[in-house]
Amino acid sequence: MDGVVDHLADERNKAQFDVEEMKIVWAGSRHVFELSDRIARLVASDPVFRKDNRATLSRKDLFKNTLRKAAHAWKRIIELRLSEEEASKLRFYVDEAAFTDLHWGMFVPAIKGQATEEQQQKWLPLAYKMQIIGCYAQTELGHGSNVQGLETTATFDPQTDEFDIHSPTLTSSKWWPGGLGKVSTHAVVYARLITDGQEHGVHGFIVQLRSLDDHLPLPGITIGDIGMKFGNGAYNTMDNGVTRNGKCVRSNVPRQLIYGTMVFVRQTIVSDASCALSRAVCIATRYSAVRRQFGSQNGGVETQVIDYKTQQNRLFPLLAAAYAFRFVGEWLKWLYTDVTQRLQANDFSTLPEAHACTAGLKSLTTTFTADAIEECRKLCGGHGYLCSSGLPELFAVYVPACTYEGDNVVLLLQVARFLMKTVSQLGSEKKPVGTTAYMGRVEHLMQCRCSVQKAEDWLNPNTILEAFEARTARMSVAVAQKLAQFANPEEGFLELSPNLVEASVAHCQLIVVSKFIEKLQQDIPGKGVKELLGMLCNIYALNILHKHLGDFLSTGSITPKQGSLANDQLRSLYSQVRPNAIALVDAFNYTDHYLGSVLGRYDGNVYPKLYEEAWKDPLNDSVVPDGYHEYIRPLLKNQLRNARL
Amino acid sequence: MDGVVDHLADERNKAQFDVEEMKIVWAGSRHVFELSDRIARLVASDPVFRKDNRATLSRKDLFKNTLRKAAHAWKRIIELRLSEEEASKLRFYVDEAAFTDLHWGMFVPAIKGQATEEQQQKWLPLAYKMQIIGCYAQTELGHGSNVQGLETTATFDPQTDEFDIHSPTLTSSKWWPGGLGKVSTHAVVYARLITDGQEHGVHGFIVQLRSLDDHLPLPGITIGDIGMKFGNGAYNTMDNGVTRNGKCVRSNVPRQLIYGTMVFVRQTIVSDASCALSRAVCIATRYSAVRRQFGSQNGGVETQVIDYKTQQNRLFPLLAAAYAFRFVGEWLKWLYTDVTQRLQANDFSTLPEAHACTAGLKSLTTTFTADAIEECRKLCGGHGYLCSSGLPELFAVYVPACTYEGDNVVLLLQVARFLMKTVSQLGSEKKPVGTTAYMGRVEHLMQCRCSVQKAEDWLNPNTILEAFEARTARMSVAVAQKLAQFANPEEGFLELSPNLVEASVAHCQLIVVSKFIEKLQQDIPGKGVKELLGMLCNIYALNILHKHLGDFLSTGSITPKQGSLANDQLRSLYSQVRPNAIALVDAFNYTDHYLGSVLGRYDGNVYPKLYEEAWKDPLNDSVVPDGYHEYIRPLLKNQLRNARL
Repeated sequence: MDGVVDHLADERNKAQFDVEEMKIVWAGSRHVFELSDRIARLVASDPVFRKDNRATLSRKDLFKNTLRKAAHAWKRIIELRLSEEEASKLRFYVDEAAFTDLHWGMFVPAIKGQATEEQQQKWLPLAYKMQIIGCYAQTELGHGSNVQGLETTATFDPQTDEFDIHSPTLTSSKWWPGGLGKVSTHAVVYARLITDGQEHGVHGFIVQLRSLDDHLPLPGITIGDIGMKFGNGAYNTMDNGVTRNGKCVRSNVPRQLIYGTMVFVRQTIVSDASCALSRAVCIATRYSAVRRQFGSQNGGVETQVIDYKTQQNRLFPLLAAAYAFRFVGEWLKWLYTDVTQRLQANDFSTLPEAHACTAGLKSLTTTFTADAIEECRKLCGGHGYLCSSGLPELFAVYVPACTYEGDNVVLLLQVARFLMKTVSQLGSEKKPVGTTAYMGRVEHLMQCRCSVQKAEDWLNPNTILEAFEARTARMSVAVAQKLAQFANPEEGFLELSPNLVEASVAHCQLIVVSKFIEKLQQDIPGKGVKELLGMLCNIYALNILHKHLGDFLSTGSITPKQGSLANDQLRSLYSQVRPNAIALVDAFNYTDHYLGSVLGRYDGNVYPKLYEEAWKDPLNDSVVPDGYHEYIRPLLKNQLRNARL
Repeated sequence: MDGVVDHLADERNKAQFDVEEMKIVWAGSRHVFELSDRIARLVASDPVFRKDNRATLSRKDLFKNTLRKAAHAWKRIIELRLSEEEASKLRFYVDEAAFTDLHWGMFVPAIKGQATEEQQQKWLPLAYKMQIIGCYAQTELGHGSNVQGLETTATFDPQTDEFDIHSPTLTSSKWWPGGLGKVSTHAVVYARLITDGQEHGVHGFIVQLRSLDDHLPLPGITIGDIGMKFGNGAYNTMDNGVTRNGKCVRSNVPRQLIYGTMVFVRQTIVSDASCALSRAVCIATRYSAVRRQFGSQNGGVETQVIDYKTQQNRLFPLLAAAYAFRFVGEWLKWLYTDVTQRLQANDFSTLPEAHACTAGLKSLTTTFTADAIEECRKLCGGHGYLCSSGLPELFAVYVPACTYEGDNVVLLLQVARFLMKTVSQLGSEKKPVGTTAYMGRVEHLMQCRCSVQKAEDWLNPNTILEAFEARTARMSVAVAQKLAQFANPEEGFLELSPNLVEASVAHCQLIVVSKFIEKLQQDIPGKGVKELLGMLCNIYALNILHKHLGDFLSTGSITPKQGSLANDQLRSLYSQVRPNAIALVDAFNYTDHYLGSVLGRYDGNVYPKLYEEAWKDPLNDSVVPDGYHEYIRPLLKNQLRNARL
């Protein structure tokens, strides 16, 4: 921040709530806020962590620079004796996809969650000190979401007491694992276990990939990077790997508890969604207040883009969703703790519901966030297309979340299976629990009528909740009835899968709405904080209602008139949120370094900085471009005929 | 094409229609098909035009390589004495954003459409021979869609008989014009005309930017590239420019006929939409037939992804849209000819309708296509994220179409103004014409009832048309009635703009559906060709009906039961199209070179080629990566403390 003039000061003065208190709510606690704030500034002030040059580096330089940042980060973590929480925040604010994401985010949790006590004692201390670097090798060239279809085999050899891990086909090459290509020394490899010629399904194995002396691949292992990916910097900082391993080593991890790891990882992904979304929204909101277009009268100043209802109608639901995802992510953390405690007590009763819920929320939040980042880019007009806006990179880095850790459509079909099972058990002794508890009131929900008579009636959370519950219950029951008409249930499931996906989406949207409403029932201090959150909750819900009006109307959950009233209420909520918009994105407390966007600068000083940034492009090193004499001049001078091109 | 084995041969044998005849339909005529086919092969076989290395080139090398391609293309055009039509196809198949796009696509048409006879005689011969290179400098750092708000001034100096073109502020710098940064020698610059201290609105001026001797900017002109943009290669092959010109020259072009140029340019954009969309759909369809996931029984082969209803439900509407946009684009070409003839006869009567129609279709088709390319990428699973899939580049190159030549939301608001005017004039003497003619039957449309009783009833084109007309008419009338409640109509327009945008979208979708239906009323030879197109038309329409069910239900245009029947019919249409899917994308007749996608290869030989491509990444030059000794080894060995990073 240059800090001389704040072009957004007027906007900040308009806010009708206590921004400092909202920052605490966003962070989750005062402790987390203070810690995040301190670490974010630490990273922002360290020149090694600059990232504004990423778009112009070649692949090799980009990758090498990432290695440098990762080493520097680890050095700082040691020098400053940072706690695990602080270290994790530091990696977050460094904001560059790297092998460390997989080491800390997948390798360590997989060992913690799935390995035996003895194995943990062996591997965890090495991993914690980064004396080994690990990755997670599940996906194959020919197999992603279908884990049970993996082709890699692990054959036990009783003579050597070792497992022989083998990629029998080209398509069984491990392909995609982050960090596998160039950096990792070890991997958790998933393979079909074979003993005495018998198959025992897919298990994880800890495999050493490279020598700890000279970093060369161990004998029998072919290993490399899979090539360029979407975006300039983006995931090209990461060595996603391909490996075909012939023969190697040791140490089976038990199959149990794999669902616990999945709940953990997906919970993290939901939390990441709110970060990525809030970041894009922060950029688009600030720039919408800076940018002016149309509406000037007699040569006066033009209207701020953020004052247009079309802009508000696209932007504010995304702002509301950022908060909604934050709170549902917070709740998922609690759910994970709950699941872990139950697993430790051998109580598996809530696991299917928790699994369906995290799978569904992973799908819903990542699909929404990817689309929303691109929408924020478009909301910035043409300048959103410049790398210096930060949005192209953010999109390219974020969007694989829709595919990794379970393709989003496949996950929704898993949710649908669980929903259909829940419907089929209604009336039995097995009562629906957790996020499906509302299904227990299915008789009421099938025939209740929405009571809304005027627009403000839509501000009542119970009214919203019942409309969402009725919609989901009725869609689920309707598709279950259609399913029942098929002689072969599996065929029916395949045939009706588009309808099933729609019911799952409705169910997941209901979860997010209900968790936002639950959050509002807590004590939330600070002038105006709770009021603003209430508005955002209503915007989130009523926008979904409008976007999915077909669901609500075709199930008779609301009437066309009530749908139109919801829309009127939405417009009025936009006007109420408008003066608070800048303060609501300030509450995310992002540094200019982390945002990485000229358009999203805290001080709003956009145009001079855009102009300044442009001149840094290597193409501007010379006024007459390299290639003029070979290619442009002969063309202009009609001398191409004899030119060697 | 390697041509040894065709992995998709079975798929091709399944087709129930004459692919060769469909190729003619797609191309528009046998003449265009043969010409395109010949030129596409010419480009594909020329090593200078290879493009598989784009993702790994640095900005400077990428740009220089584009200059080389452009010069080589021009050389070939001269050597082979290509016609204008052939030359334009050659540039199309070279498939690299370059200054030539603006020279031929904007600079030349602007002179042809807006300059006087005398000016044309001076400038066109130079431009046709490329003795000058031109660009189109309208957008400014602070002004895009709001052309009337441009700040650049052109002051007439009677003493020198010259215009002094000036950027008085930072935000009035011309910013974005393609080709302006490094290559163009001339520009059509848009500026506010000032004579005798009086303002006369925005006009175009032909301005020389650079010396034709040494390519240096003329005195008083500051000029450069605006920096890196979205994607690896994408538009980074293009020198989008920034310029602040102090003083310069000559030759005012009259303000008339600017709408004719806009109709021309937007017509081209709609036609480009069907190209980009069909290309993405071709890749996703072929790879969906190659890729197998889940569904294997007892270790047998897994199910082709294209056989899943969820995949069909996402993919086939995009395939249908590619054809729909092709036909509406063809019709727009006719419309442009019609408008031009009328303008030459000083008949301006159809201009507002033609302008609204092209603006709306530009918005509708580009928004849809950008989203659809990204959806196609996701439909390819993780591998769609690799640059070698071709889809990240296609997306990054395509997506600015949503913003340039009029922001898509701003355009829809222009359509809405026209719609509201049409509604207000109903009952008067002024009858709605062209694409709004259906409004003349508003009384019938306000009260008609959809007659569908069983799923197959939705196959009747008149039934579909009436439902779409009723929906649009009722939405337009409803929002017009809401508008009438505002004392200040402009305030009402701003407040209700989200609703207005929705009515415009409905109107534009109706146009596309109706032009597809008109196409089917023509003679179309070839076994099964017309039948397949009929299915695609129905898929296009019924998918929109399902996606916008809220519109149809809230206006009472159909009942919930009829909506559900439409959905049933849609599923059955998917099954009918399925065996024809590969042949339907073969009909686009794209070479592997033009597609630029390992996943979309004609022969379906995907996995070995993906594997081969990966090893070409520079990161795989060495087994132990550059940076190991500086950054990885000290980390693993706990020796970071003393390391210089």
